[in-house]
Amino acid sequence: MDWLDAIAWNADGLVPVIAQDADDGRVLMMAWMSPQTLETTRRTGEAVYWSRSRQRPWHKGESSGNVQRVRAIELDCDGDTLLLQVEQRGGVACHTGRRSCFYRRLAADGWRITDTVRRDPADMYGEGSDE
Amino acid sequence: MDWLDAIAWNADGLVPVIAQDADDGRVLMMAWMSPQTLETTRRTGEAVYWSRSRQRPWHKGESSGNVQRVRAIELDCDGDTLLLQVEQRGGVACHTGRRSCFYRRLAADGWRITDTVRRDPADMYGEGSDE
Repeated sequence: MDWLDAIAWNADGLVPVIAQDADDGRVLMMAWMSPQTLETTRRTGEAVYWSRSRQRPWHKGESSGNVQRVRAIELDCDGDTLLLQVEQRGGVACHTGRRSCFYRRLAADGWRITDTVRRDPADMYGEGSDE
Repeated sequence: MDWLDAIAWNADGLVPVIAQDADDGRVLMMAWMSPQTLETTRRTGEAVYWSRSRQRPWHKGESSGNVQRVRAIELDCDGDTLLLQVEQRGGVACHTGRRSCFYRRLAADGWRITDTVRRDPADMYGEGSDE
């Protein structure tokens, strides 16, 4: 069986992908991959997601330089979720300039921001950037 | 704004939820929550997911005893994914008896099993169990 056939692609032909910092385990983001972008990710060693909003491959870091080097690709028991162990270049995974996209935590009075902005988004993306 | 309104529920009214071991950062599983099960999770402090296959709330560990005590609920930048920091009772999150559902890793020759079975699934679930 082809390794791609072990994956239970959803109705849109995609699979959710969790990216985790391979060094300290911080969960950085969740995105989606198509069979083609997953194959590209494996071949190139850099995370390439499928952008659902733009309906095209999205090479993470193509604009910002914050690429993700992939150390391992893991699959769950149901075959319907992937977990990537990555090295996050620039230390910033989130388009807000924070390390992780998960920077809000539920407190008694609602969502509280827990992480600081490491890099100004205006410096990360040039005009016309699509990331 | 109600804290539940910050979440971008998908077309099915659900949100994907990553469960991570709060102590060592191991990603244990990915599942889904409805507004109701998320509210129950917050209120009770134990993870309650929405079972898409059974179309009903699923109190994780209700059969196996492997409940997840929730230490924190985190939300990503787009508001469309949750990350739970949990204490995994019994040390087993996966229905296969492994610690994590992510127990397969892509190698040159395909998916390789990386984790051992800690608990026999036959001991975890009684007859008629629905977990």
